[in-house]
Amino acid sequence: MEMVGEERENQYETSHYKSSLISDPWKPCRRTRAVVKECLLKLSCCLGAVCGMHWYGYAALGIVMAFISFFMDLSVTKLLRAHQWLYVNLEGNNVLQFFCWTLYPACLCAVGSLFSQNISPFSTGSGIPEVRTMLVGIQMSHYLSLTNMFTKFLGLICTLAAGSTVFLGKVGPFVHLSTMVGEYLSNLCSLVQNTKKVKPQVIQKDKAAKEMMVVSAAVGVAGCFGAPISGVLFSVEVMCSHFAVKHYGPCFLAAACGALTFCLFTVWSGDEETLQPLFKTNFPAALPFYPLEILLFASLGLLCGAVSCCYLFCHRWMLQFTKTKEVFIKMLTTEKCLYSGLVVFLLASVTFPHSAGQYMASQYTMKQLLTSLLDSSSWSSHIHNTSVPLEPDTLSEWNSSGRPVYLSLVFFLFMKMWMLVLACTLPVPAGYFMPVFVYGAVLGRLHGELAAYLFSGGGMSFNPGGYALAGAAAFSGAVTHTMSPALLAIELTGQFAHALPVLLSTLLANAVSRSGQRPSFYDAISISKKLPHLPSMKKVYPQLPLVEIGQFLGSKQIQLQKTAGLEEIQHVVNSSSDTQYPVVDTHESQIFLGFVHRSELLIFLSGCETETVEKHLDDICCIHPSSVLLSPHSTVQETYRLLSLAGEHTLFVTDRGRLVGTITWTEMKRIFEAFTSET
Amino acid sequence: MEMVGEERENQYETSHYKSSLISDPWKPCRRTRAVVKECLLKLSCCLGAVCGMHWYGYAALGIVMAFISFFMDLSVTKLLRAHQWLYVNLEGNNVLQFFCWTLYPACLCAVGSLFSQNISPFSTGSGIPEVRTMLVGIQMSHYLSLTNMFTKFLGLICTLAAGSTVFLGKVGPFVHLSTMVGEYLSNLCSLVQNTKKVKPQVIQKDKAAKEMMVVSAAVGVAGCFGAPISGVLFSVEVMCSHFAVKHYGPCFLAAACGALTFCLFTVWSGDEETLQPLFKTNFPAALPFYPLEILLFASLGLLCGAVSCCYLFCHRWMLQFTKTKEVFIKMLTTEKCLYSGLVVFLLASVTFPHSAGQYMASQYTMKQLLTSLLDSSSWSSHIHNTSVPLEPDTLSEWNSSGRPVYLSLVFFLFMKMWMLVLACTLPVPAGYFMPVFVYGAVLGRLHGELAAYLFSGGGMSFNPGGYALAGAAAFSGAVTHTMSPALLAIELTGQFAHALPVLLSTLLANAVSRSGQRPSFYDAISISKKLPHLPSMKKVYPQLPLVEIGQFLGSKQIQLQKTAGLEEIQHVVNSSSDTQYPVVDTHESQIFLGFVHRSELLIFLSGCETETVEKHLDDICCIHPSSVLLSPHSTVQETYRLLSLAGEHTLFVTDRGRLVGTITWTEMKRIFEAFTSET
Repeated sequence: MEMVGEERENQYETSHYKSSLISDPWKPCRRTRAVVKECLLKLSCCLGAVCGMHWYGYAALGIVMAFISFFMDLSVTKLLRAHQWLYVNLEGNNVLQFFCWTLYPACLCAVGSLFSQNISPFSTGSGIPEVRTMLVGIQMSHYLSLTNMFTKFLGLICTLAAGSTVFLGKVGPFVHLSTMVGEYLSNLCSLVQNTKKVKPQVIQKDKAAKEMMVVSAAVGVAGCFGAPISGVLFSVEVMCSHFAVKHYGPCFLAAACGALTFCLFTVWSGDEETLQPLFKTNFPAALPFYPLEILLFASLGLLCGAVSCCYLFCHRWMLQFTKTKEVFIKMLTTEKCLYSGLVVFLLASVTFPHSAGQYMASQYTMKQLLTSLLDSSSWSSHIHNTSVPLEPDTLSEWNSSGRPVYLSLVFFLFMKMWMLVLACTLPVPAGYFMPVFVYGAVLGRLHGELAAYLFSGGGMSFNPGGYALAGAAAFSGAVTHTMSPALLAIELTGQFAHALPVLLSTLLANAVSRSGQRPSFYDAISISKKLPHLPSMKKVYPQLPLVEIGQFLGSKQIQLQKTAGLEEIQHVVNSSSDTQYPVVDTHESQIFLGFVHRSELLIFLSGCETETVEKHLDDICCIHPSSVLLSPHSTVQETYRLLSLAGEHTLFVTDRGRLVGTITWTEMKRIFEAFTSET
Repeated sequence: MEMVGEERENQYETSHYKSSLISDPWKPCRRTRAVVKECLLKLSCCLGAVCGMHWYGYAALGIVMAFISFFMDLSVTKLLRAHQWLYVNLEGNNVLQFFCWTLYPACLCAVGSLFSQNISPFSTGSGIPEVRTMLVGIQMSHYLSLTNMFTKFLGLICTLAAGSTVFLGKVGPFVHLSTMVGEYLSNLCSLVQNTKKVKPQVIQKDKAAKEMMVVSAAVGVAGCFGAPISGVLFSVEVMCSHFAVKHYGPCFLAAACGALTFCLFTVWSGDEETLQPLFKTNFPAALPFYPLEILLFASLGLLCGAVSCCYLFCHRWMLQFTKTKEVFIKMLTTEKCLYSGLVVFLLASVTFPHSAGQYMASQYTMKQLLTSLLDSSSWSSHIHNTSVPLEPDTLSEWNSSGRPVYLSLVFFLFMKMWMLVLACTLPVPAGYFMPVFVYGAVLGRLHGELAAYLFSGGGMSFNPGGYALAGAAAFSGAVTHTMSPALLAIELTGQFAHALPVLLSTLLANAVSRSGQRPSFYDAISISKKLPHLPSMKKVYPQLPLVEIGQFLGSKQIQLQKTAGLEEIQHVVNSSSDTQYPVVDTHESQIFLGFVHRSELLIFLSGCETETVEKHLDDICCIHPSSVLLSPHSTVQETYRLLSLAGEHTLFVTDRGRLVGTITWTEMKRIFEAFTSET
């Protein structure tokens, strides 16, 4: 039914555009433009006959993001190779090698933060906390601007090219980039489909934008790793309270398009022979693990949960520290470039392969690190059993100096903990998921190697790679308080045999890290940035959701009475730019009747100058009834949920029929601020 | 914070129970009972200290359902083996073999429907349409009764033991069984945790029951196949409009527990050496498919979508037919047992291996069918290339008479189409998912074999098993309008390499079958059973969601005025059994103030006989403000969503502050009936 209606609208549009364009006298190349436009409109009619334009938008989003992802990977690989080439060619001269090792990433990150500081300060960080807030329904248009997109894109390439020294990832900014691209595609789709009616268009456009944003979250993950299903799960998890089931199909479509395109690009570039997972593993298929190993996986989950609590505590402390120390505040506001350069120089000095770096496999890129950790054969057995030939590729960096690999792994874990916390303060676009994923893999590998050392014998052969996989999923899941990393780990490696142990570890790690209402990694950033995201704020102010909104309603408010004349309307329109104004019976009775749209009033005001007769509000425009009303006793939680679910901009609060207030997202933010300043 | 509160409540409960039990004089074995109860309460305190009792409930649900699933599989296997043994031992006597082949399943199904007819008529069919309706929030307690559970369990064993003759599955009833077990566990948990306060307890219990039902849907799928992640996706999809993100963790926990237990049972029973997927395949890992095969998978998706439309049309026609033909109505209401026997006898006669059955691999069980179809080597190459040895196990039944396998596959598809539609009318507990899954696998296999025949050569080796996998997912996804079969297919086979093609096929099949707002398989049953499930009804009455509720509000309604005395309260309590009554200022002004709980009024009424002073309503109990109000202009869609999301039993409709109506689920059902009878 919907589609037939859309089709009819499209046809109407075609003829309308054509005639208006030809009659427009001042445009250049009118004839050519008209022909091109006509062809495009015919094409859009044909496309629209198959399914709604927005479906093409979702598919296009997936394809565009996969292309961006592939292009970014390609550039980063080239930049990393250049660094490596330079470093290898300086072999023999330690001083020059040191400067090459440290200055290259330091300069890249300095350039990245220079972009951020001078072009768009909203591009720093991961972007996921902001995306979560926007998904609730709150408008943050500066986070979706075109400049921000380019800054984030270039900055992210710089950060990734700095390599495993800085140890930052790509997922978070990619989700943010995806929402920005989605916003533009959504605007494009509604431009193609737009109708003449004023009111439905605004609401329709908002709903389409919201849907596109949910889809973008899925595409961000899917396009980044070629992992469609965990992308969809991520977009379910990232929602504030409820996931609309109607977004489920679009998410799957866009994620599948994204993942498919990403994999096809890999095939076409000659890296792979066919569509393969990003980190394909070759675990033994016949007996992937013994049933009793389930207990070891469970203990790994608990361990990851405990370590994640420690990591999150350090991260929160660091966030607090940078906000209270005068020198940090000054550096992070005015001297971002210098700060980035200094911090990255410090990190790079520590990881220099001729100093401490040799004990923590610092020559590996993030991808090589993960591949080496997911290797299925036990490293300790190589050392014990000299008859088995060493695999130089996977082991060389982890025991380059002949030490036991356990020590390398422990040293890596210890050093990377503080280095990662420090790196999180860098004012550059950067993802924080991949580092914790790799960190978890190291934790899992250590657990697996120890288990292999302790329990192997009697014909049992352990696979520490499986533990690395479970550890990666469990630790990253615990840090972000999500379950989708479990599926992501499986999709990244194509290793389905380990699905149950990985899921179990992730569940237990989540249970430990969520206990006691601790904030997740993204919650901590949300709180630190004071974003109006209720689920995060709840962690700090547990009473906030139960507060009644009545006590925060302002005394004076803008309203129109039913019999309002031209002057009153003019006054109201001038004094406020809300999209909807409440209408009451009379200013004395305050009985709430409904609302009028600002756009309708503006149309009336622009047209009424020619008219002389004095008219009342109820003659000139439709008073829309409000289908849902709040009472002053509604709690913040209920109001927040209604605003985010109903997709309405404005909710009206009445008490016994009398209007007592208006709730919008702006009002909601004011309530949060009032509450937090009170307590 | 929550947990600390719960703990404190638990401790309070322990002491309270203990004292009340000892002081109760008429109970036998008081001392022993008290000791046992004390131990149990201490245990529950200890457990409660780790996490809330409901978490144990979710884990227990998963474990119980996995146990039931395993036990059911075991019984069914024994019954199927008995049938096979009898049939093989009668070799040589075709008449006796015919009776053995036909009467065994006919008797089983007759017994199954006898149970349904005489014990609980609500146990027939799949149960998923009813579960979907209950998930919205509508109470259907007869579908969750203990008798229904046992009837469904026994009936399902009978249906499954009838084997591939009847060609029915287990998933749907299993999801229904899971909700019933979940209901009991939820009651148990709230019994352990119950508090003294009347109102919060009712609401808390309802919320817990709703949460448990969402979890049950996930566990149903997870426990049935050992597939946790598709279980969670299924529970997202089965929701009416919005999936609450807070249910996500519980779903994962319960599904993981269910799948883990199911797999461990398989290991302990000696069927598998370790935790493996149910239908483990051995597709070639190095090159699972060529990149260009993506196009073939896409065309398979479109084909599956088209065939699913045909199947759904036949199914809807059959539903209509059985509802209009006098003889069917009579048989299906009074002679269920006879009807089942006759239909199954007919189906079994057709599949008799010495008649038409030999052309459709009828000797295979459902599991063997699926295993044979998922075989990775091409059947047609065996026939063409005689140098490759035949694998007798997988091929024997499909070309037992030496015909090309294509003919067998086409004949299977043609016959099973009407047989399946006929089998769906059987009044026995039965799942309709697995049959369409296998049907899709046959469709995919045919497509794959044809592709292998046409395109192989030049060193390319096709894997038709991959097409069978994609076909199964695509066809079952298209029939049920869901995406989770894509993941289920992967989890069932552990074949992650085919994830993207399977997802693509399922997406395209869904697109075709959902086009034109066609109802899905479950929608058709919902509509036929007149269940108050809006998303299904929308497909038949597209105007229904947009109707304003104002026109359906009854003129007279039950209300209390603020100054109501004892008599008025008594009268209202006697005349209606609603849980909440609206309170107005006076009967004349009708200004809405709030609502009172029936339970509070009852407490007052039972206590007030001793009091002599006349009291008013506002003196004796708290008038709760209603946080959300509807207007008469609210649409059916909005009202439905608010009722299902808010978890409230009752919503009040006001117009300019005056009460004009009350909306409950009962009222909502009345509106649906009024609308459908009007149009």
